[in-house]
Amino acid sequence: MVVNNKVDSLSYDVEAPPAAPGQGAAAASAAADAHRHAPPPAVTPATSVLELHKVSVPEPRTAAKALRQRLGEVFFPDDPLHKFKNQSSARRLVLALQYFFPIFQWGSEYSPRLLRSDLGISYAKLANLPPIIGLYSSFVPPLIYALLGSSRDLAVGPVSIASLVMGSMLREAVSPDDQPILYLQLAFTSTFFAGVFQASLGFLRLGFIVDFLSKATLTGFMAGAAIIVSLQQLKGLLGIVHFTTHMGFIDVMRSVFKHHHEWEWQTIVMGTAFLSILLLTRQISARNPRLFWLSAGAPLTSVIISTVLSFIWKSPSISVIGILPRGVNPPSANMLTFSGSYVALTIKTGIMTGILSLTEGIAVGRTFASINNYQVDGNKEMMAIGVMNMAGSCASCYVTTGSFSRSAVNFSAGCKTAVSNIVMAAAVLVTLLFLMPLFHYTPNVILSAIIITAVVGLIDVRGAARLWAVDKLDFLACAAAFLGVLLVSVQMGLAVAVGISLFKILLQVTRPNLVVKGVVPGTQSYRSVAQYREAARVPAFLVVGVESAIYFANSMYLVDRVMRYLRDEEERALKSNHSSIRCVVLDMSAVAAIDTSGLDALMELKKVLDKRNIELVLANPVGSVAERMFNSAVGETFGSDRLFFSVAEAVAAGACKPPQP
Amino acid sequence: MVVNNKVDSLSYDVEAPPAAPGQGAAAASAAADAHRHAPPPAVTPATSVLELHKVSVPEPRTAAKALRQRLGEVFFPDDPLHKFKNQSSARRLVLALQYFFPIFQWGSEYSPRLLRSDLGISYAKLANLPPIIGLYSSFVPPLIYALLGSSRDLAVGPVSIASLVMGSMLREAVSPDDQPILYLQLAFTSTFFAGVFQASLGFLRLGFIVDFLSKATLTGFMAGAAIIVSLQQLKGLLGIVHFTTHMGFIDVMRSVFKHHHEWEWQTIVMGTAFLSILLLTRQISARNPRLFWLSAGAPLTSVIISTVLSFIWKSPSISVIGILPRGVNPPSANMLTFSGSYVALTIKTGIMTGILSLTEGIAVGRTFASINNYQVDGNKEMMAIGVMNMAGSCASCYVTTGSFSRSAVNFSAGCKTAVSNIVMAAAVLVTLLFLMPLFHYTPNVILSAIIITAVVGLIDVRGAARLWAVDKLDFLACAAAFLGVLLVSVQMGLAVAVGISLFKILLQVTRPNLVVKGVVPGTQSYRSVAQYREAARVPAFLVVGVESAIYFANSMYLVDRVMRYLRDEEERALKSNHSSIRCVVLDMSAVAAIDTSGLDALMELKKVLDKRNIELVLANPVGSVAERMFNSAVGETFGSDRLFFSVAEAVAAGACKPPQP
Repeated sequence: MVVNNKVDSLSYDVEAPPAAPGQGAAAASAAADAHRHAPPPAVTPATSVLELHKVSVPEPRTAAKALRQRLGEVFFPDDPLHKFKNQSSARRLVLALQYFFPIFQWGSEYSPRLLRSDLGISYAKLANLPPIIGLYSSFVPPLIYALLGSSRDLAVGPVSIASLVMGSMLREAVSPDDQPILYLQLAFTSTFFAGVFQASLGFLRLGFIVDFLSKATLTGFMAGAAIIVSLQQLKGLLGIVHFTTHMGFIDVMRSVFKHHHEWEWQTIVMGTAFLSILLLTRQISARNPRLFWLSAGAPLTSVIISTVLSFIWKSPSISVIGILPRGVNPPSANMLTFSGSYVALTIKTGIMTGILSLTEGIAVGRTFASINNYQVDGNKEMMAIGVMNMAGSCASCYVTTGSFSRSAVNFSAGCKTAVSNIVMAAAVLVTLLFLMPLFHYTPNVILSAIIITAVVGLIDVRGAARLWAVDKLDFLACAAAFLGVLLVSVQMGLAVAVGISLFKILLQVTRPNLVVKGVVPGTQSYRSVAQYREAARVPAFLVVGVESAIYFANSMYLVDRVMRYLRDEEERALKSNHSSIRCVVLDMSAVAAIDTSGLDALMELKKVLDKRNIELVLANPVGSVAERMFNSAVGETFGSDRLFFSVAEAVAAGACKPPQP
Repeated sequence: MVVNNKVDSLSYDVEAPPAAPGQGAAAASAAADAHRHAPPPAVTPATSVLELHKVSVPEPRTAAKALRQRLGEVFFPDDPLHKFKNQSSARRLVLALQYFFPIFQWGSEYSPRLLRSDLGISYAKLANLPPIIGLYSSFVPPLIYALLGSSRDLAVGPVSIASLVMGSMLREAVSPDDQPILYLQLAFTSTFFAGVFQASLGFLRLGFIVDFLSKATLTGFMAGAAIIVSLQQLKGLLGIVHFTTHMGFIDVMRSVFKHHHEWEWQTIVMGTAFLSILLLTRQISARNPRLFWLSAGAPLTSVIISTVLSFIWKSPSISVIGILPRGVNPPSANMLTFSGSYVALTIKTGIMTGILSLTEGIAVGRTFASINNYQVDGNKEMMAIGVMNMAGSCASCYVTTGSFSRSAVNFSAGCKTAVSNIVMAAAVLVTLLFLMPLFHYTPNVILSAIIITAVVGLIDVRGAARLWAVDKLDFLACAAAFLGVLLVSVQMGLAVAVGISLFKILLQVTRPNLVVKGVVPGTQSYRSVAQYREAARVPAFLVVGVESAIYFANSMYLVDRVMRYLRDEEERALKSNHSSIRCVVLDMSAVAAIDTSGLDALMELKKVLDKRNIELVLANPVGSVAERMFNSAVGETFGSDRLFFSVAEAVAAGACKPPQP
């Protein structure tokens, strides 16, 4: 690009004195320019004095070393041992201690924080568990996370999605109303399995599995879950006693209208009023982030006001929480059941809630880490969250993780270290020890209102619209997750959405972009002629860029597609009286990897083109591809005379050769 | 590259007269050169007279048009209507007729061919079907394919893999010895479903599904299947009467040695002798391709000789085929059963055999088409093969497809059109009508020997060794298929191998290559410093090439990896007293696609780098990526001042800016 302005002024007169080294490409490029504006001249090859650059191969590695590097990249992408390099052994011990118990890292720098409203009680109800379990789950897990976790901003506790999924999966087998003890046992056991699953993922460094839940999937999933959750709250909000045990949209709506004679006007008035206030404060805080305390404080205020009202009123038609046991978490290790007919169910529920809560926890941790410019170690986080849940299941807690809403509140309140988790646990401790009787008159309807307010925020209509605008397949995954959760089941919705996301990746690999490239005037760069309208084809050359790894799944397509381009280009040449294609240049710059089928495809393409007396040359293979090529027969076939440093050099070298007879 | 030799001689003296347009990049590149050899000079920015090229976006398309193009590429990659363009309607009618019945296309040009030995009888035994079904299957399907098929070289008939799979899947539920009629019914019904499945795949243009059976998978699968098949032949070869009904390696070996008292020495001698001869002729033909007729004719000759021997000998200890009914295929439409408890099994078997036989048929068709320089339409082939099997199932045939061994024989014999299929059918017709009694004394042991000879050729040790040398994960898929088929079951082996193949694709997407790039001296090209040892980093710049589409599955990794490179490069700069990184250039040339998560990742990376006062610029996004970027918020953030035509221009432009305070 730089000096070509001068080159353009050179005539491609072959009678000129010996061309400077490398002029061939310039001549070709100049010819290409001319071709855009006028019928192309016969390409007059420059002399053979052409300085070409060799295609390099990365330094040879043994198979074992290559494997080690590859595995390292898969399992240790974050290079966790980096800081241990070049350190004394005493220093290494301290670092290791800090690695496993990050509390040592920030133990000194700590700042107290605001007392925050607690949603634990409401989330436990989402999982069909007694409200007190929600408080228990806000006490022990934060303490454990404070010890093990590596994120400084993550606030730990029960979250809505995992609560909902646990509730809906367990309720398929056991009714929480009819068999409350069995249901509790299953919940704790599932929590235990969730912890085991999470810790193993982290230990085996398989953390990348959570990456397969795409944001599009989660957008749809959360919106669907939010609606399902809100619908479940109609029970509390309308005061209905006989409510369906199903979660599906249709079942719930049918149940709501079937029992319309049970609707309680007092409950409805109270619920609607508080719901409006909560939604309003939420809206105000969203518009004016400085008023964040409004939405943060509103739930607790509502609980207090409604409890007082309900205490004064004492209406029998408003159902209240009732008596809650005072005292800290009772041990529950004896409630874990690993035998009997429900083992499969608890394992399934554990894996499902485990992966969902991991996804939320990791995403939140990463988000705040990137805002505050530090890195969280995903795999270590998983181990911390896993251990936290395993311990939690023995102390009357159900699944907990890093919660987005809690962490956001922490963050706005200026928390800088994980000590915030300890402070939060202390606040819950005070509640458990002394404040439990105060909840006696808290109306259930207020919990429903708080839950609805919390989950409504999960519906991201603007995000879905953005998906539609940018990527239709992402939107499809989103819509599938949404409708699947709403109409079929939570698992089905997630499974379909993950399937679509994976299919999208496979589709892109199966049908990769192949583009015809031309030279951009004033440069030596070859670009897609569809993208750069000024890019001009070089006569007698077909330059095809392959924009994907070449795999078994697309190797056949690649050959077919190149042949189709060749046919089109020959038709075009025939129509416009240009010289026919003599050389096909495959630009491999964007081919990130190749497998044995891909190598075979290159050989086959060469064979097919040879029969038609057309040359096939390759340009700019990347390291791993060049390595593979030289390890196989392809390396010999495409020797140094068919393998070029760049498309420009390939064209230049090709132009140097006399036209084939 | 071309003119840079001159540029190198330019000094980067800022006091020189106004730089020529575009000199900035040259200066940067020259600076980079200097940097390799000596402590880097303070990068002296050129004047701002810098001709930059804009990044283009493909012509705007409506969502509907984009979707249509995308779907067109997925479902009509071969552009089947191409030849209908610009034709009169009469001509179009002729073309359409030729499209649906390719026989019209080559009806005139036909050449007779050699009579060929037929393996149909043996393959039927592989599927535990009566031998006559093999002959029937060599009669009707070739006729139908001659009418509908588009490949001129494909010879149609039963093939070993599909026969084996059908036999092993059906035998799990029904014993062919105890319930022969039911077994036949299931075989025909499975064949019908295989046809329906194949035709639907073709009709729905989902032909790319067969691409997911990679060559590596098939190599392992076929080797495993060949061994299993050979082991089954031990029954005939040793003359064992009570043989296990299982297919697994261990079961069969146990059964063979448990019944060693049933071994018949006469059978063993005869079998070993013929097997040796067959393997020998095979070996000779393989070494000397001109003697192909030796291996082609050996099976028929062996059948004739052994039948004569057995007729003379009439030993009761050598089991013979026995009486075969004379006459052409009886109708079997009444044997198709679509109700009852076996429907699921037949559908499963149909899909399995259907996809396997398609894979072989399509691969063979494509191979010979590319040798003879024409194209087969994969989807149309599928419809032809599907209709052939549906019709076959009503005429006492089981699953058939294009067979590699038959086609290869045809090809060597000089067949040029699908009339060869008609000739073959005629030969089988003569056999069926007149020669059936001759098979009465054909010993079963000879069929076993023929089968072993046929399938041994499927074991491709050299191919497996090549896989190991070139791609360890491909080898793993191959080994998994081999061991799975041998030790567990045919379906399990295939499923695991396909799973590994897909995992390989996903893994490459999840952990894409990211490389640090430097400028190659004498060019303006940036290449991986790991691959090109001469490539030199540009001081204060970190150029990272992303060699994969950016998806939800790798967007988090991308951010982490770039930050890790940044850390490493800053450490390196500190150590060697270079200026610290001021600008990160992301080379997007090899990013074939991006989704919403990927766009978010770019935004996040920018945010994180902004906090550290480091610029993030993007270079050379391809069409679809540029389109997406401009459709989203990324387009605004990375406006024209952060989006460059090439890395060289990005570096040049960056060098023009004064260092940040």
